[in-house]
Amino acid sequence: MKKSALQRVRAEYQPKLPKALQGDVKLKVGEPTQSVANQEEIKSLFPHTYGLPVVEFEPADKAERVEEPFNVGIILSGGQAPGGHNVVSGIFDGIKKLNKESRLYGFLMGPSGLVNHQYMEITAGYLKDYRNTGGFDIIGSGRTKLEHPDQFDKGLEIVKELNIKALVIIGGDDSNTNAAVLAEYYKNIGADVQVIGVPKTIDGDLKNEWIETSFGFDTACKVYSEMIGNIQRDCNSAKKYYHFIKLMGRSASHIALECALETQPNVCLISEEIQAKCMTLDNIVNYLCYVVAERAKLGWNFGTVLVPEGLIEFIPSMKKLIQELNDVLVEYASEIEGLAELDKLQAIHSHLSAANAELYKSLPKDIALQLSLDRDSHGNVQVSLIETESLISRMVGERLEEMALEGQYSGTFKTQHHFFGYEGRCADPTNFDADYTYALGYNAAMLINAGLTGYMSSVRNLTDKPENWIAGGIPITMMMNMERRNGELKPVIQKALVNLNGRPYLKFASMRETLALNTLYQYPGPIQYFGPSEICDRPSMTLLLEHDKPIN
Amino acid sequence: MKKSALQRVRAEYQPKLPKALQGDVKLKVGEPTQSVANQEEIKSLFPHTYGLPVVEFEPADKAERVEEPFNVGIILSGGQAPGGHNVVSGIFDGIKKLNKESRLYGFLMGPSGLVNHQYMEITAGYLKDYRNTGGFDIIGSGRTKLEHPDQFDKGLEIVKELNIKALVIIGGDDSNTNAAVLAEYYKNIGADVQVIGVPKTIDGDLKNEWIETSFGFDTACKVYSEMIGNIQRDCNSAKKYYHFIKLMGRSASHIALECALETQPNVCLISEEIQAKCMTLDNIVNYLCYVVAERAKLGWNFGTVLVPEGLIEFIPSMKKLIQELNDVLVEYASEIEGLAELDKLQAIHSHLSAANAELYKSLPKDIALQLSLDRDSHGNVQVSLIETESLISRMVGERLEEMALEGQYSGTFKTQHHFFGYEGRCADPTNFDADYTYALGYNAAMLINAGLTGYMSSVRNLTDKPENWIAGGIPITMMMNMERRNGELKPVIQKALVNLNGRPYLKFASMRETLALNTLYQYPGPIQYFGPSEICDRPSMTLLLEHDKPIN
Repeated sequence: MKKSALQRVRAEYQPKLPKALQGDVKLKVGEPTQSVANQEEIKSLFPHTYGLPVVEFEPADKAERVEEPFNVGIILSGGQAPGGHNVVSGIFDGIKKLNKESRLYGFLMGPSGLVNHQYMEITAGYLKDYRNTGGFDIIGSGRTKLEHPDQFDKGLEIVKELNIKALVIIGGDDSNTNAAVLAEYYKNIGADVQVIGVPKTIDGDLKNEWIETSFGFDTACKVYSEMIGNIQRDCNSAKKYYHFIKLMGRSASHIALECALETQPNVCLISEEIQAKCMTLDNIVNYLCYVVAERAKLGWNFGTVLVPEGLIEFIPSMKKLIQELNDVLVEYASEIEGLAELDKLQAIHSHLSAANAELYKSLPKDIALQLSLDRDSHGNVQVSLIETESLISRMVGERLEEMALEGQYSGTFKTQHHFFGYEGRCADPTNFDADYTYALGYNAAMLINAGLTGYMSSVRNLTDKPENWIAGGIPITMMMNMERRNGELKPVIQKALVNLNGRPYLKFASMRETLALNTLYQYPGPIQYFGPSEICDRPSMTLLLEHDKPIN
Repeated sequence: MKKSALQRVRAEYQPKLPKALQGDVKLKVGEPTQSVANQEEIKSLFPHTYGLPVVEFEPADKAERVEEPFNVGIILSGGQAPGGHNVVSGIFDGIKKLNKESRLYGFLMGPSGLVNHQYMEITAGYLKDYRNTGGFDIIGSGRTKLEHPDQFDKGLEIVKELNIKALVIIGGDDSNTNAAVLAEYYKNIGADVQVIGVPKTIDGDLKNEWIETSFGFDTACKVYSEMIGNIQRDCNSAKKYYHFIKLMGRSASHIALECALETQPNVCLISEEIQAKCMTLDNIVNYLCYVVAERAKLGWNFGTVLVPEGLIEFIPSMKKLIQELNDVLVEYASEIEGLAELDKLQAIHSHLSAANAELYKSLPKDIALQLSLDRDSHGNVQVSLIETESLISRMVGERLEEMALEGQYSGTFKTQHHFFGYEGRCADPTNFDADYTYALGYNAAMLINAGLTGYMSSVRNLTDKPENWIAGGIPITMMMNMERRNGELKPVIQKALVNLNGRPYLKFASMRETLALNTLYQYPGPIQYFGPSEICDRPSMTLLLEHDKPIN
C-alpha cells in the first residue's frame, strides 16, 4: 500500500486509553439489570443472558485472571464508520498485552465471513498499515444478518476450528441485537463461545444512558460540516443560490442536527419534529417559502437547507401514501403494467383514497413515477432512492412562483443540490473517534478476559479527557424492547431518535428563527490532528450539549 | 461573526513572504516582451501597454520610491477560489507598509461594483476576520464582464472620486484579459489609473512560463482529493459500487488530473486526450466496460471513475451533434414545439445528419431530452447541465448487459454518483495558497508603487520554500493571442489546457493500466495546518511534476 504523507505520520499516533485500562484491571460488578421495556418477554427470550450486571473496570495491582493465550474473531457488520480499524487495533493490543500468544482472526466481508468460513489472521505487520485510518477495508464489511440458528451452527464450526474464545461484532443496533441473540444461543447450547458487541454507526442512533455515542458519528459529522461550511462560504460569496443538502443518517436526524449546530445553516429540517407535529409536505414547503420570501425582502436570494435522509417517512401523510401505494401497486399490477407513464399515474391516482390521491397529484411527476415504479425485491416503494432534497426544492420553486403572481414574493430562487454520505463514512477518524474506538476495542479484550458474554463494550464520560473515561460492559439485553419488524414482534435494541426535549434539539430550536432570517454561517474547516487541543480533540456538539457542557 | 475554533486559531497565521518582499524593494527591469502569438494584431490593439518588460523585485537598502499615500480599489471577479481573502490582506499590508495613510477600497459583488459605484473601505478591523479564510464574502464576487468603454468611463468616475491610484482585478483568464483592456483604455485616455491583475481560478487553466499556477487550484484539489479518498476507502470496504465522480474545472481537466495523481482512482478521463485522439462516446464507454469486465474477472465489482466537468464538449462527435442541435432546434422550433416528448425526439432525429442522428439515438432518452430542451438565453444547448457522470455510467451499464448476454462479462455493476465543485471553491486555503495569495497581493502593492499598469502579479519558483519565491510582474499582453469568441476575433490570454506532453499527464498515463486493473487507492485525508511540513506545505502534484520534483 502506497501511503499518503498524512497516512505515514498518522500511523504513528498512539491513541489514548482511559486510566483504568492503562495497566492491569479488575472488575467492579454492579446490580442485576432489567431491559428498558417488555421485561418479561425479553427475559423469556434470553434466559441465560438476561439480567446481567453492568460492569466497570478499575486499575488493579495485577491482572485478575492470569490468562492462557486465547483467540478472538471479529466481524465488521453493516455500513462503514470511521474508527473501525482502531477497534481492531485496540482488541489486538488488548489480547496481546494479556498474552503474546493470543491470536486475532478477522472474518471477511461481514457476518457472511463467519457463516462461509472466510477469514484471515490479523498480525501486527498487517495491522500496522491500518492503525488510525478510516474504512473497514482491513477485512471488509457486509450486510448479511446473523439471525438463524443454521448460521450460528455453521459459524460455530469455524470458531471451534480456530479455537476462538470470543466473537466481537462491531455493528449498529441491529447487529448488536443479533450479537445478543448469538450470545444467548451459544450459551444455551453450551458452546462456550463469548460474544461482545461494539457500538458502531455514523447515524448516531445507537445510544442510551450507558452508550453515550456510537463511534464514527463524530468524524462523519465533522466531514459533512466541513463541506457544508465550504458551501456556505460559497453561498455567502456568490449570493445567488439556495443549496439543498441532504445528509445520510437513515431514520434519525442526529447527523443533520449536529451539522446544523456546527455550521448554522438557514434551515435544518428535523424529521422527528415533523412527525411529532404531524407536519405535511405542504407545511414544510410553506415554511421554506416563508424563509425564502423573508430573506428576499432583505435582498438575500441565497441560503442553505439541510435535509435528513429519512425525512419522507417521517411525514405522516407521506407515510400513509407510501403504505397505500405499496398495496395499490400490488393489487392493480396487471392493470398498471404496460401503460404509458402518464396513463400509469392516472390509473394509480384513481385507486388511491381521497387524501392520498390529492397528495399524490401534488408531487412532481417524476417523483410520483419514482414512487410508483422503483420498488425493492419485496415490492415496496424504495423511499431511500427518492431525491428528497430535489423534491422539496422544486415544490418550493413552484410555490414561490404562485406567491410571486399573488405579489407575496419578489426574488430569484436558483438551487443547487448535494447529498453527503459516502464522503464521511470512511474518513480518517478524528482524535476523538481514534481514541474512543481504540478504547472500545481494548476494553472488549478485557471483557473477553473477564469471561463475559452478551455484553456491549462501553466507554463513558466522553466529554472529559480520555484518561478519565470510564470503561466497562453493558448487558445488551438491558437496552432491548419488543418491536414489530416485518410483521413480527422481535426483541431489539431501542433505536435513539432525536429527543425533542433534549438539549441539542432545544439549542437548535432556540436559534432557528435567527438563523433563518440572518446569515450567521459557521465554517468549521477540515478535521485537524496536530494543532491545539480545542481544535483537534473537541467531541461533537451533540455530546457536549447532552452532557450540559459549553459548546464554544 | 461567530467563529469556529479553527477560524480563531487560523486567524493568527502569518503568511510567509518571499525574501525579496520582506523589506524594502527595488525593481529589476528585463527586456521588452512579445505576445505568445499574433504579435502584430495584439500590438496594434494595445499600443500603450504592448511590449513592456518583465520585472522582478529584489531586496533594497531602502524603498526605491518614497511614496505619498495612495488608494487602491480591488475587484473579485468570477467564481470563488480559496485564498482570495489573503490577496486582499497582502495588498492591504503592502500599501500600509509603504504608507499608513494609504487606503484600500473593495468594489462589491464583482466588477458591477465598480460600474455601479458600490464599494466599501476595507479597514484593519474589518479585514481581521477574513485573514487566512476561504471565500470571497469579504466584498462578494460577480460575473459581470468589464468589456465596454461606457463601463470603463462609469468606473473612472468613482475611481476619481475616491482618489484611487490603481485597480487590482483578481480573476481568471477572461478577467485578466479585461484588466489588460482596461489598463490600455485608461492609459490611452490619459486617465492615470493603473490596473494590475492577479491570477485566480481553481480550474488551473491560467498558467504559463511566468504564472506557474493560479491560486485556489491547490486547495480545491486537496478538498476534492480528501473526498475522493474517503469515497475510495468506502468503495474498497463495501466492495459493491462503482463511484462516478464528476469534478468542476470547466474546459480543462487539470483538477481531475491532479486529483487522480493524489488519489489513484481506477479511471480518470482526460478531456484533452479524448479530443486529441478523436475518441467517441462509444470509445469511452467501451474502455470503461473493459476495465469493469477485467476487474470483475478478479472478483472486484467496485471501482472509482473521475470525470472532468467539461468532457462532453471535448468529444468531437458530441461537439458536432451539439452544434447541429443548436441549429436544428432554432430552424424547426415551430414544428418541434408542443410535441410530446417522444415525438419531439423523433422530430429532432429526423432533421439531423446521418452521423449525428445515430449518436443522438444512442443517448439515453432523458439525456437526449436535456440536450434538446434546456437551452440558455442564446438558444444554445446547456452542456454544463448535462449529468455526464450519470450519462456515462448508464451507457456503461447498458453495454455491460449486452456483454453479459454475449458471455463477455459476468459481474454486478451498481453505481453511485457525485459532483464536487462548491465543496472546494471556498475552502480555507492550504498553507501553500495562504502564502501564495498573500505574496501575490503584497507584490501587487509593490507593482502599483512602481507605477506599473497592465501587469499581472507574478510569484514564481513555487516548489521551493516561500522565502525563495521570485516576485515580480508580467505584462498581460505577453500572454495573449487572438481567438474567436462569439464569432469575433479577440485578444485573449491563452488558456492552458492539460499538456499531453507534460509530466503530470505522462505520469498519470504511465500508471493508468496498473490503476485500472488493481486497487491502489490513495487516501490523502483532510488539509492540515499545524503538522509536519511534508503534510502541511506540499504544493500540488501537478506543480511538483511540472518542475520535475519528486511527488513522494
